[in-house]
Amino acid sequence: MIKVGIVGGTGYTGVELLRLLALHPQVKLQVITSRADAGTPVSQMFPSLRGFIDLAFAHPDEAHLEQCDVVFFATPNGIAMQQTRALLDAGVKVIDLAADFRLKDITEWEKWYGLSHACPDLVAEAVYGLPEVNREKIKSARLVANPGCYPTAVQLGFIPLLEAGLIDTGSLIADSKSGVSGAGRKAEIPTLFSEASDNFKAYGVSGHRHLPEIKQGLSTVLGKPVGLTFVPHLTPAIRGIHATLYGRLKKEADLQALFEKRYASEHFVDVLPAGSMPETRSVRGSNICRIAVHRPQGGDTVVVLSVIDNLVKGAAGQAVQNLNIMFGLPETTALNVVPLLP
Amino acid sequence: MIKVGIVGGTGYTGVELLRLLALHPQVKLQVITSRADAGTPVSQMFPSLRGFIDLAFAHPDEAHLEQCDVVFFATPNGIAMQQTRALLDAGVKVIDLAADFRLKDITEWEKWYGLSHACPDLVAEAVYGLPEVNREKIKSARLVANPGCYPTAVQLGFIPLLEAGLIDTGSLIADSKSGVSGAGRKAEIPTLFSEASDNFKAYGVSGHRHLPEIKQGLSTVLGKPVGLTFVPHLTPAIRGIHATLYGRLKKEADLQALFEKRYASEHFVDVLPAGSMPETRSVRGSNICRIAVHRPQGGDTVVVLSVIDNLVKGAAGQAVQNLNIMFGLPETTALNVVPLLP
Amino acid sequence: MIKVGIVGGTGYTGVELLRLLALHPQVKLQVITSRADAGTPVSQMFPSLRGFIDLAFAHPDEAHLEQCDVVFFATPNGIAMQQTRALLDAGVKVIDLAADFRLKDITEWEKWYGLSHACPDLVAEAVYGLPEVNREKIKSARLVANPGCYPTAVQLGFIPLLEAGLIDTGSLIADSKSGVSGAGRKAEIPTLFSEASDNFKAYGVSGHRHLPEIKQGLSTVLGKPVGLTFVPHLTPAIRGIHATLYGRLKKEADLQALFEKRYASEHFVDVLPAGSMPETRSVRGSNICRIAVHRPQGGDTVVVLSVIDNLVKGAAGQAVQNLNIMFGLPETTALNVVPLLP
Amino acid sequence: MIKVGIVGGTGYTGVELLRLLALHPQVKLQVITSRADAGTPVSQMFPSLRGFIDLAFAHPDEAHLEQCDVVFFATPNGIAMQQTRALLDAGVKVIDLAADFRLKDITEWEKWYGLSHACPDLVAEAVYGLPEVNREKIKSARLVANPGCYPTAVQLGFIPLLEAGLIDTGSLIADSKSGVSGAGRKAEIPTLFSEASDNFKAYGVSGHRHLPEIKQGLSTVLGKPVGLTFVPHLTPAIRGIHATLYGRLKKEADLQALFEKRYASEHFVDVLPAGSMPETRSVRGSNICRIAVHRPQGGDTVVVLSVIDNLVKGAAGQAVQNLNIMFGLPETTALNVVPLLP
Repeated sequence: MIKVGIVGGTGYTGVELLRLLALHPQVKLQVITSRADAGTPVSQMFPSLRGFIDLAFAHPDEAHLEQCDVVFFATPNGIAMQQTRALLDAGVKVIDLAADFRLKDITEWEKWYGLSHACPDLVAEAVYGLPEVNREKIKSARLVANPGCYPTAVQLGFIPLLEAGLIDTGSLIADSKSGVSGAGRKAEIPTLFSEASDNFKAYGVSGHRHLPEIKQGLSTVLGKPVGLTFVPHLTPAIRGIHATLYGRLKKEADLQALFEKRYASEHFVDVLPAGSMPETRSVRGSNICRIAVHRPQGGDTVVVLSVIDNLVKGAAGQAVQNLNIMFGLPETTALNVVPLLP
Repeated sequence: MIKVGIVGGTGYTGVELLRLLALHPQVKLQVITSRADAGTPVSQMFPSLRGFIDLAFAHPDEAHLEQCDVVFFATPNGIAMQQTRALLDAGVKVIDLAADFRLKDITEWEKWYGLSHACPDLVAEAVYGLPEVNREKIKSARLVANPGCYPTAVQLGFIPLLEAGLIDTGSLIADSKSGVSGAGRKAEIPTLFSEASDNFKAYGVSGHRHLPEIKQGLSTVLGKPVGLTFVPHLTPAIRGIHATLYGRLKKEADLQALFEKRYASEHFVDVLPAGSMPETRSVRGSNICRIAVHRPQGGDTVVVLSVIDNLVKGAAGQAVQNLNIMFGLPETTALNVVPLLP
Repeated sequence: MIKVGIVGGTGYTGVELLRLLALHPQVKLQVITSRADAGTPVSQMFPSLRGFIDLAFAHPDEAHLEQCDVVFFATPNGIAMQQTRALLDAGVKVIDLAADFRLKDITEWEKWYGLSHACPDLVAEAVYGLPEVNREKIKSARLVANPGCYPTAVQLGFIPLLEAGLIDTGSLIADSKSGVSGAGRKAEIPTLFSEASDNFKAYGVSGHRHLPEIKQGLSTVLGKPVGLTFVPHLTPAIRGIHATLYGRLKKEADLQALFEKRYASEHFVDVLPAGSMPETRSVRGSNICRIAVHRPQGGDTVVVLSVIDNLVKGAAGQAVQNLNIMFGLPETTALNVVPLLP
Repeated sequence: MIKVGIVGGTGYTGVELLRLLALHPQVKLQVITSRADAGTPVSQMFPSLRGFIDLAFAHPDEAHLEQCDVVFFATPNGIAMQQTRALLDAGVKVIDLAADFRLKDITEWEKWYGLSHACPDLVAEAVYGLPEVNREKIKSARLVANPGCYPTAVQLGFIPLLEAGLIDTGSLIADSKSGVSGAGRKAEIPTLFSEASDNFKAYGVSGHRHLPEIKQGLSTVLGKPVGLTFVPHLTPAIRGIHATLYGRLKKEADLQALFEKRYASEHFVDVLPAGSMPETRSVRGSNICRIAVHRPQGGDTVVVLSVIDNLVKGAAGQAVQNLNIMFGLPETTALNVVPLLP
């Protein structure tokens, strides 16, 4: 059994990790920490877990994380980078669901996150945990930077086009929509029910932290910088990201075949039949990314529609997928979940 | 492997059966019928099932249901009663998720459902599939009448009080609230998003088909007729039933201990700690009924709060639970699902 | 023109007052205060008011409220009682939308609100602002305690039955459901979109501050104490209260005629035709309370359904109605708003 | 008083017209027709209108529309074109809220709407009712084609850029999101609450009827054809359209000043301060279009955010605005409504 620790288990990515790991046959959930709620039974805070998780939140100082085989950080940005070196030194693998190890360019990271980075060398070592791109590196990684939710949906949608050199990469557009859980379980006015329901809005138009992450990922695939306009929006749903991606075709190709071939062996990327339009609820609660590719009116604009559950493939599910890869387990272990519809 | 057929798989109870049975290790899903959609791949209508269900809908005339071990009816009322006798004669067990076999009083049934009953003798044989009351009978049943959603939540909440003889049974009140999926996947104006969202209303105040079912169930437990006022309401959620039950105490008792003892060995009934108030989302997607019992201001009115997912414990999940019981499997097979929260 | 001040205008009752008063032909909105947001234009915080309200929030110390003709308090509990005496002394009328002057029993108030009351004598003077009961007193009041949202819906539903002496008043039941805006514009986790949507729950079962207010109101009408079980619930809608009221009939009566007669001359209480079931959205944005009375299956339980918009008839609209009465204006001034449906 | 008739008043644009016209001081609502619901009081179908509208639906054959001064068609496509000539001949002005007179190119119209057009000559006469473009022509029009909801939001957002010749008009992108009421009050499965809530999806990617309408409008402004990719999406809100528009800048300009100047004298177009992001709820129930213009990271992609209430500025409100213009009334008559927030 793999001994697992979770740091910061009171947010949505934390409770989602618990939902998935509770039924993981190779995992023993050893400890879950929360400074503010130490001593509180996890299932008291999240009654959905009654009967599945018997642990109480442990104080970080008494968590003995070094006795785990792997530790997930489901914390705000800036926490994992403080604790990762000690864990790695103790032989513990680390999967960070926050952003501490996502951006290779430290200066860029410090600009977007407003913090001084504690361990640039570990950033260099960290593997960006998008299995559809980095599976081999993840297998042997000690430290995985789990991708952001928008970056997962956007990259999986653009990658086949970039790899095939089909589109003008100077002016990509990613018009993206997220459910409200993407903002986390934080007491803030803009995400109150009475503010966010029956409403729709863009946010972060001038710049969002996922922009450099997406650009880094796409540029790595392409081998040179891409130009990207990224506009995130808030939609009144709990879960789900819908990315609508626009690119200008430079040459002809069978787009449907291209996408199907690229993801033929990927269990968690489902290319829909031509003409389809994926709904976010079709992946609710599951680790699947569903993608459709369109070329409206046969023009030179290609439109890719990409949906994920932001808390699963966009966070906790992808983290478990990375765990499986790192420990040599079948990639679908604990992730063979049928989406909840309706 | 148990060969399973589903009649009428295009509604919400049908797709929910599919979600649960897709991962049932002892079940082989043999056939699923739909007259209107024969030939259509199931996963085309419900993309959430892509990768899990490979069947297409079969025309009822070509379904060979008699070759199944068990057939679920997830049909409108009045269908199952037409086909059940032939299936039973062929040695097939039947679980009806509709109401055809729920009411023992044929006259009452015909009054509420506006149909002439096709097989009163089978009604007499049918076992009412509420495992927490009828487990032993279900074990040997050929024909199970799967309870309604409201009746499940309301009965499980009232039963401990009735069995203990604690409350005045002449004027019970069940103020019940249901998510919109309870109305089924039917094209009707009142359940449109633009009608049902940001809204709350009562309906069926003068009489609802679940009223006689609840009264029959409670009267059977009590051994004499009960008086019940049942007011259902529509709440803008997809899933979930919340029953708020009121009774007048006749004598003192430790209500918390009473409920805990009654359901101590029931895997799918979770009595919450004293003072708790269950949320419908705490059972979303799962077969659990969570219950809390209150006595506001120490007065003589007892208030029971009972929540279920109407499509699971209120329909498809309870049907699978009944399948497990009928076939001697562990009751939790395929039902060990962590609720989806948030 | 009536010079109006508003204290505490950044919450939902504040912005709702602004929505209504912006088009009030006899009102000049003089000042609106907010300690935290002093200097911020109102329409910056609430872009819905762009073009309608040109004021900026004023610091309370510079508000010169004593120059107003009337001041509304749209503040947390405990603020109005600190400032009301000085305003009254300066000849300013006061309408408190919070609870400071609602309960005549100071001990009871202090128990439920956890504060020591600053001016018990003014509580004695304050008129409870439910126009359908206290219109004459409101006309000459200096200080009006605007009713709570639940109390408005529940009292208007029970009053005809109590006045007619038709029901057993020892065990009334008020099963009440509120939209989330009733919790105010406060950054708290339980009212986040991801917590409150697609969910339904009871809260405050052991005791809610509106319980003593309702009991006081009903007892006053009846002339003796009533027994009441009050269970509030949270429903995933922005606005709306739906009260489902239960009482046991002691004698026969034409309930429909009773209700129609009681409210025949009330502009803001609409008794629906027999058999109707009011929806909360049918009063969205308006000051109307719609009521239907039922007697299910002809039994001895009477069921009253009463809906209001919690922010209008349950708060700001009723406050404007009280303003109109206090200043001798037609009661519908600025309140002749068609509900927004869908 | 202007005698007004409404044909087809049982849909959402119909009830919205009634909401607005009920308080129009210069309008006498003469007749409202519905073939299916003739005889039913309007306020029985829409209880929100109780006390505001006393009419019953009239059968079209007995409506005497020729006695009206103006008739609104709030009907499915293809109805208005059958009846308009007779009304015009009788001296009645016509405002069509459907699409019968929107596209000047009859061949194009017949392709998108699948009907043979009944009166191409009247199409030629009809004025496209976007006041911000065609105000002068509307003043003297007998027949106004009220714009579609998406076309209103998209055109108002692009027009300043096109008029100024600032962007590459060969590859405009309009990523648009609509609340569910845009689909009308029709009993269809995809718009059921249980299908559309907690979900997000694109639709009509291969082609939507509003595409040629938008292209016609923009091309007219530009004086030559534009290239446009238009992707509509369904968001789980009742009302609201949010258009996110992308264009490539060809030369430098002060975009904020450009937009502010273009709409300086337009009462119903509100250009927000630089850096703003409009929310759909900020215009809920009102005739206002709020617009913000951005240039992310100072690049050459301009992003315009444009929000309207699809039932008001996108339908009934704009129709009333056109009525006011056609009859020489102040354009804001009956439209001075504060948006409902929250």
